[in-house]
Amino acid sequence: MTMIKMPKRYPELANPQMRPRFTGVPTFFRLPLSEDLAGLDIGIIGVPYDGGVTNRPGARHGPREVRNQSSLMRVFNEGTGVAPFLGRRVADLGDCWIEQPYALEGAHAEIAEFFHAVKAAEVTTLAVGGDHSISLPILRAVAAKGPLGMVHIDAHCDTGDDYLGSRFHHGAPFRRAVEENLLDPRRVIQIGIRGTVNDPRMWAFSRESGMRVLPMDEFHDEGWRFALAEAKRVIGEAPAYLSFDIDSLDPVYAPGTGTPETGGISTIEAMRLLRGLTGCRFVGADLVEVSPPFDQGGITAFHGAAILFELLCLLAAAEGDVQRPGAGAA
Amino acid sequence: MTMIKMPKRYPELANPQMRPRFTGVPTFFRLPLSEDLAGLDIGIIGVPYDGGVTNRPGARHGPREVRNQSSLMRVFNEGTGVAPFLGRRVADLGDCWIEQPYALEGAHAEIAEFFHAVKAAEVTTLAVGGDHSISLPILRAVAAKGPLGMVHIDAHCDTGDDYLGSRFHHGAPFRRAVEENLLDPRRVIQIGIRGTVNDPRMWAFSRESGMRVLPMDEFHDEGWRFALAEAKRVIGEAPAYLSFDIDSLDPVYAPGTGTPETGGISTIEAMRLLRGLTGCRFVGADLVEVSPPFDQGGITAFHGAAILFELLCLLAAAEGDVQRPGAGAA
Amino acid sequence: MTMIKMPKRYPELANPQMRPRFTGVPTFFRLPLSEDLAGLDIGIIGVPYDGGVTNRPGARHGPREVRNQSSLMRVFNEGTGVAPFLGRRVADLGDCWIEQPYALEGAHAEIAEFFHAVKAAEVTTLAVGGDHSISLPILRAVAAKGPLGMVHIDAHCDTGDDYLGSRFHHGAPFRRAVEENLLDPRRVIQIGIRGTVNDPRMWAFSRESGMRVLPMDEFHDEGWRFALAEAKRVIGEAPAYLSFDIDSLDPVYAPGTGTPETGGISTIEAMRLLRGLTGCRFVGADLVEVSPPFDQGGITAFHGAAILFELLCLLAAAEGDVQRPGAGAA
Amino acid sequence: MTMIKMPKRYPELANPQMRPRFTGVPTFFRLPLSEDLAGLDIGIIGVPYDGGVTNRPGARHGPREVRNQSSLMRVFNEGTGVAPFLGRRVADLGDCWIEQPYALEGAHAEIAEFFHAVKAAEVTTLAVGGDHSISLPILRAVAAKGPLGMVHIDAHCDTGDDYLGSRFHHGAPFRRAVEENLLDPRRVIQIGIRGTVNDPRMWAFSRESGMRVLPMDEFHDEGWRFALAEAKRVIGEAPAYLSFDIDSLDPVYAPGTGTPETGGISTIEAMRLLRGLTGCRFVGADLVEVSPPFDQGGITAFHGAAILFELLCLLAAAEGDVQRPGAGAA
Amino acid sequence: MTMIKMPKRYPELANPQMRPRFTGVPTFFRLPLSEDLAGLDIGIIGVPYDGGVTNRPGARHGPREVRNQSSLMRVFNEGTGVAPFLGRRVADLGDCWIEQPYALEGAHAEIAEFFHAVKAAEVTTLAVGGDHSISLPILRAVAAKGPLGMVHIDAHCDTGDDYLGSRFHHGAPFRRAVEENLLDPRRVIQIGIRGTVNDPRMWAFSRESGMRVLPMDEFHDEGWRFALAEAKRVIGEAPAYLSFDIDSLDPVYAPGTGTPETGGISTIEAMRLLRGLTGCRFVGADLVEVSPPFDQGGITAFHGAAILFELLCLLAAAEGDVQRPGAGAA
Amino acid sequence: MTMIKMPKRYPELANPQMRPRFTGVPTFFRLPLSEDLAGLDIGIIGVPYDGGVTNRPGARHGPREVRNQSSLMRVFNEGTGVAPFLGRRVADLGDCWIEQPYALEGAHAEIAEFFHAVKAAEVTTLAVGGDHSISLPILRAVAAKGPLGMVHIDAHCDTGDDYLGSRFHHGAPFRRAVEENLLDPRRVIQIGIRGTVNDPRMWAFSRESGMRVLPMDEFHDEGWRFALAEAKRVIGEAPAYLSFDIDSLDPVYAPGTGTPETGGISTIEAMRLLRGLTGCRFVGADLVEVSPPFDQGGITAFHGAAILFELLCLLAAAEGDVQRPGAGAA
Repeated sequence: MTMIKMPKRYPELANPQMRPRFTGVPTFFRLPLSEDLAGLDIGIIGVPYDGGVTNRPGARHGPREVRNQSSLMRVFNEGTGVAPFLGRRVADLGDCWIEQPYALEGAHAEIAEFFHAVKAAEVTTLAVGGDHSISLPILRAVAAKGPLGMVHIDAHCDTGDDYLGSRFHHGAPFRRAVEENLLDPRRVIQIGIRGTVNDPRMWAFSRESGMRVLPMDEFHDEGWRFALAEAKRVIGEAPAYLSFDIDSLDPVYAPGTGTPETGGISTIEAMRLLRGLTGCRFVGADLVEVSPPFDQGGITAFHGAAILFELLCLLAAAEGDVQRPGAGAA
Repeated sequence: MTMIKMPKRYPELANPQMRPRFTGVPTFFRLPLSEDLAGLDIGIIGVPYDGGVTNRPGARHGPREVRNQSSLMRVFNEGTGVAPFLGRRVADLGDCWIEQPYALEGAHAEIAEFFHAVKAAEVTTLAVGGDHSISLPILRAVAAKGPLGMVHIDAHCDTGDDYLGSRFHHGAPFRRAVEENLLDPRRVIQIGIRGTVNDPRMWAFSRESGMRVLPMDEFHDEGWRFALAEAKRVIGEAPAYLSFDIDSLDPVYAPGTGTPETGGISTIEAMRLLRGLTGCRFVGADLVEVSPPFDQGGITAFHGAAILFELLCLLAAAEGDVQRPGAGAA
Repeated sequence: MTMIKMPKRYPELANPQMRPRFTGVPTFFRLPLSEDLAGLDIGIIGVPYDGGVTNRPGARHGPREVRNQSSLMRVFNEGTGVAPFLGRRVADLGDCWIEQPYALEGAHAEIAEFFHAVKAAEVTTLAVGGDHSISLPILRAVAAKGPLGMVHIDAHCDTGDDYLGSRFHHGAPFRRAVEENLLDPRRVIQIGIRGTVNDPRMWAFSRESGMRVLPMDEFHDEGWRFALAEAKRVIGEAPAYLSFDIDSLDPVYAPGTGTPETGGISTIEAMRLLRGLTGCRFVGADLVEVSPPFDQGGITAFHGAAILFELLCLLAAAEGDVQRPGAGAA
Repeated sequence: MTMIKMPKRYPELANPQMRPRFTGVPTFFRLPLSEDLAGLDIGIIGVPYDGGVTNRPGARHGPREVRNQSSLMRVFNEGTGVAPFLGRRVADLGDCWIEQPYALEGAHAEIAEFFHAVKAAEVTTLAVGGDHSISLPILRAVAAKGPLGMVHIDAHCDTGDDYLGSRFHHGAPFRRAVEENLLDPRRVIQIGIRGTVNDPRMWAFSRESGMRVLPMDEFHDEGWRFALAEAKRVIGEAPAYLSFDIDSLDPVYAPGTGTPETGGISTIEAMRLLRGLTGCRFVGADLVEVSPPFDQGGITAFHGAAILFELLCLLAAAEGDVQRPGAGAA
Repeated sequence: MTMIKMPKRYPELANPQMRPRFTGVPTFFRLPLSEDLAGLDIGIIGVPYDGGVTNRPGARHGPREVRNQSSLMRVFNEGTGVAPFLGRRVADLGDCWIEQPYALEGAHAEIAEFFHAVKAAEVTTLAVGGDHSISLPILRAVAAKGPLGMVHIDAHCDTGDDYLGSRFHHGAPFRRAVEENLLDPRRVIQIGIRGTVNDPRMWAFSRESGMRVLPMDEFHDEGWRFALAEAKRVIGEAPAYLSFDIDSLDPVYAPGTGTPETGGISTIEAMRLLRGLTGCRFVGADLVEVSPPFDQGGITAFHGAAILFELLCLLAAAEGDVQRPGAGAA
Repeated sequence: MTMIKMPKRYPELANPQMRPRFTGVPTFFRLPLSEDLAGLDIGIIGVPYDGGVTNRPGARHGPREVRNQSSLMRVFNEGTGVAPFLGRRVADLGDCWIEQPYALEGAHAEIAEFFHAVKAAEVTTLAVGGDHSISLPILRAVAAKGPLGMVHIDAHCDTGDDYLGSRFHHGAPFRRAVEENLLDPRRVIQIGIRGTVNDPRMWAFSRESGMRVLPMDEFHDEGWRFALAEAKRVIGEAPAYLSFDIDSLDPVYAPGTGTPETGGISTIEAMRLLRGLTGCRFVGADLVEVSPPFDQGGITAFHGAAILFELLCLLAAAEGDVQRPGAGAA
């Protein structure tokens, strides 16, 4: 090998994450891109699939733009002091390969297979969609050993039934997950729900199955600390999944999404809610529904990257003691 | 007639409002487009006129883009449970025809004539502007039998006096409406007022005539519930009009408007305030000042459509008992 | 019926096509929206389907935005003098209904069924996609009586083979159409072909089946008049179809498309080429691949609408003598 | 006076036109802003009026954005060698003041009065609109001593008749100018005409009055040199006016305009055509219909500024010998 | 001199600030542009320099776009009643001239020299950047007589150390200012601090030197009134500077900035906080980091102009009794 | 190593370049990212530096966005049949590291050092800027053995002299390169030159040193084939460099650049000109001045990627026989 020699004035800059943020190839957080699972703790995986949408497509372009904006994130979490790259081996595993993009169920089978492989290597997965239909095949892998709890932040319950012949579109993953015993509905909380509906019982499955639905109005009345307390209460101490749909955010923070709903969560509320979950036993997480073609100047992907960093910190902290060199510094 | 046969797998989809939201011709909420007033309860009317602006034009394009974005709304109001299309006959009446666009007073006369015709058929009007000057000719029709109360949500009082030779520009409609005995100022509340002014007495008419001015700072201090209580107190039980200027919203929610003012109402506050007015005796309403040429990715028109849906629900509920199949479901 | 009375100062304005262009509900060219085929000559049909794309989606939103921009077109063709709405009954038939959007072949079957129904009523179809995969099911209806010739204007031959398990994606419709005996390849010309390829034999089917491929370089060298002459020579006097992919245009004219290719046809060349085809025996046409989420300020849809107007004029002229009140006027 | 001292390393930078192009207050070409006409040769005047449009407004914002982009122009014309600021005193006269913006004819009277005042001081006027209706009151001042010839570059003839009650809208100025004996139609050439029309005789006045109409197709066939020769032939040696409507350019160069038409002139063709007119006896000129709200990234205003620079050079050269220090240098 | 005569119907319109807001040349608030310091109270100065950025450039274009949007501001502050142009002579002094743009320290020396000259004339300076590195040379002039207190509103402390060989980049000005005895750190408050960091001790200098750091989370918990009280307590009665970095605002209000951080201050909070500081002894202020190339529809510059107006009112009020004709009017 | 298993249905898709174009991490053309020079033929290198601009910055973001858009390119050149990835080992070498971004000459020294290292390994370099100042340090490495010829496609000659104290800004690289004996001016051709100038002798160095300047007007008159013939004649058979400034293209193709000039080369002309140079002895090339903050929807970066692919093909062909599996296929 004849390697180009590294910079020498500032040796710390050998770390790509320390370089000026407009440089380099945009992997997630400018992490190493690797398909080698050996010794890895957390793998971030793009899932560029939007074949499950019911309205505006484009989330297939989400992983790339979230990667692009993620260079604007740095390495320490000033809010919690968590340093996810210290003591945890994290990599960008690239995009989940989908060989049957024209067949929803075929694509889902491939996604499940990919995540099974990663889980088999005892690597925790952090997925970036893609539309929300991908959470179902991910859960098939992540919850293979038994149903999980879930903190689900979204404008929609996504517990709908069949739509135009499909049981697996992006409005239905969590009904299917309950039916497949991947989620324990009594340990599921859905935060931020709002918007008009086409059927007054559209999300009835959520409540009837035992999920805690915390609509946006309640969130607005009671605040993020209340939602946090409820979330901790509902998921308890057992393993849980975290699914963050970017459309939970107010459209001014996330115009680039397929199904925006007026009047959502602000980013500061979302960030604080997520940081408050530090220490919960999350065994996997996803960020979904960033749709770059509908974005404005990259702000949705930028906020997606900021949320993704929080999800990463949560997963890092969930694996046991985590370094917090910055705790109290901010 | 040789009609194309309707879809057959999902008969409910014969209703255009149930079809995928990217399809079809964008009438308001994908309602039938009709100029037939017989048997109608509520007519939604575009008023594509912006000849009354003092600065940035473009609101003439408002009705079209609000129609376009309104397909993103569904049919039940998850917040109040109101189902405006059940038990009420609602139609898109098309655009109010203006044959004298180069003559402000001529155009206003035509708008008044159009709304008189609709009122004469006992159809409640919901107008989409256009600039705010259109509220005056609309009130000439809607308040023909006597002065009304009004909930007026706006960044500006719009009770100014003559400007550059015109008595009827978009900063003056409500002074004229009081002078013409169309509004009872003691039953008028103006919510969200703010911004710099060119004359410290610019909006003095409002207070001196007896209107309740609730500036943005007071709204920010006291909250939407207080503003709601004040609004109900001021308009009381008698008939009232509702005028919603999109520039009442903060510019991040509504950049596409002619006269933005820093620091306004958020959409969730606006939505909750409006929903709280359910049951008030509104006899007409308008949404004005959406200016698509200044919009960013359609977000102003999107929020305009969301507000319009709330106005429609208020008018539906004001006509007596309304079906609420979704009450308590969210 | 209690109709709102029509404007009276300018009776000609009872015709929606004559009204100011920012007003009204955007049907194609502000034509009547009707599902009644009786007595109709030409029906313009939206096909909001993009399940066949291989890269960037969004063409499902094409029909709506082409409708929106089509209000900027007027009623006489200054270039050819053709008046398509005189002596021809033309309507906007709305959007082709697709009940199986998650199943490519199912959706195609429904498209074919819809166009069969329209053809059965002896109405000529002008389709607005949607991705290019829709041309196959349309041809199944339009070419039901035997193979047609075709003028195909595109950056790509779209005669590819299977891709990721699908035989019917948007890069393959015309290979399938030849295989299904819907097209006579010796009477097919493909104009504007260019771009990088992943396989040097990617479009080999075109030449080997006998199609005339006229690549962009040849077009650039020889000019639109040569391309026109070639097109007339190839299709001859027999019935032919016309398929216009917006990506044939240079990306500066059509950024809003899924598969842009550097260095294409200018709009003035395209307009003159199309106008030159007046009198050819076209029995159907389509405009495809306008993808609004990737558009910039509506320019792609605007140019799509201008092209659509030319296609309409060609179909009007193909049905026999057409009124040309404006011939020679420009 | 206590003046801030001027920069000292590079004394030539005391000239604002030489400073970095992102600095300073954007007058036209960073010229001095002055209302003093004494000793001036050419005055550039903004006319922020768009009350004459028939469709999309916004040209009132044209002067400001053309000023903004004009900082990107430098001081020598590389094409012709003309140095318009050497030997000619040029100033930005600010915006023509309009006190009756709500009354089309009143506004026109004020524009005429302003230009009369400037002409009375023997200052040549270069106007930046605003919509095309402003050319009529300008001609009332500029052609006060007798009818002029005109080179008119536009997509539309603008010789229409009354529209919705107005005789003076932006589609009619040149019919009125002929009627008022401000133009000699036999010395008028209209270049770039195209687009659909609502009436086959829409522009018949042009031909019937004797104007030379050179449609876009002829321009495309024969080229800019032919158009230039025709223009010189038609206007001859006598005084002439030059009116440049930005919509003459193809919409890819000028999306920000009220009435775009597919398939127009390219900027290089326009620049060369204009440069070829150097030496003609132009006694005034205008650039109209730049509408910033419809622009994309300022490209229309940028091209407007480039055209404006050419118009300035033509006026500078029309006043007699002009310095050409750069002739032959490029 | 031969002046164009002023408008006559509305003599008050001789004041450019009273004219329609889309007209005229955009100086700050349409004030006179002058380099004459005699008799002036406050001078607004553009500092178009961004050579100190560590990531995204573009703030060099800030002064021009803030000037452009500032026309949307009027003359009275409805919140505080302050009328900054009554009893205070205010001018746009143009852009600070920088002759050494390629040498950071040279440029800084020139900025300092410019501000020294203005201060020497006893004119209070209000600067518009440019990146935050400019605050250091400005303080060298403004704090020449001794260290000042400071209200610093920002997402970042900007008290970092050397970066890639520069001691004077935009992340370090206030460390240098303390080292140079320009600021008294015990009288400095930093409000709005947040975001990820690359070093847990990145902003340690702030706390260790004695500054009051009020992070965003504390602001979110305690509110703007608390932050205001803290700010007044920290700066006390002695002279202070005010530095407002637009990235203190949430990115939805200010996407056009070089270093956005999720979850910031809203504009209404910022406006109220600033208004609450009326009466404090501010001896200078700046607004920095507006980066137009990253803006969306001008909203960042619009908000920058609104903040600038508040800063101007604070400086006007700091100079002694100020006219408040509008107090209590809103 | 525990690798994620590769896809299995379509083994060819193990090649990232064959995967759907919206997937994966955007290296240049989705090539392997490697700092290992061993055995490499061509290395593509980002140079994210824009410290040499004289007006609008942002080209530092160029490499990233060109990488992003380059996924839209495929692997065979349909125009020339060249297959650059067959028989040539090509890699993305990442971004040239710059440790002294605040010091123009320091940064240039680092760029030169990086390219020296790559050349030392006998790897041909293809650079993506960055502003045009980078060509000088690149030439210091590439032309280390003696002066080269050059095909320089640009709107500006870039042979200016000192500007504001810098000898090395982006308007001067080729004057310096001649002075440093890196270029043989008699073997240099500059194509596309145009625009206004601040000094009639601004580019005099070009002609006086013996370069062939082919201005845009000559290009427009004589066509791309003439320019190609001239280019071949001027550079002859000896080694040459190729520098492509994106601002050579007309601004409609490349709005995202720092110094746009009206009326440039179209992409089809540029592509054909470049393809015609196949076989010339190019020993290095660069693409510069793509400035994403000023881009519109990525079109400039898209065209930059298309140009980059042509440059790559030229370098591949310059190294001897190259595979052309697609020759004649298009």
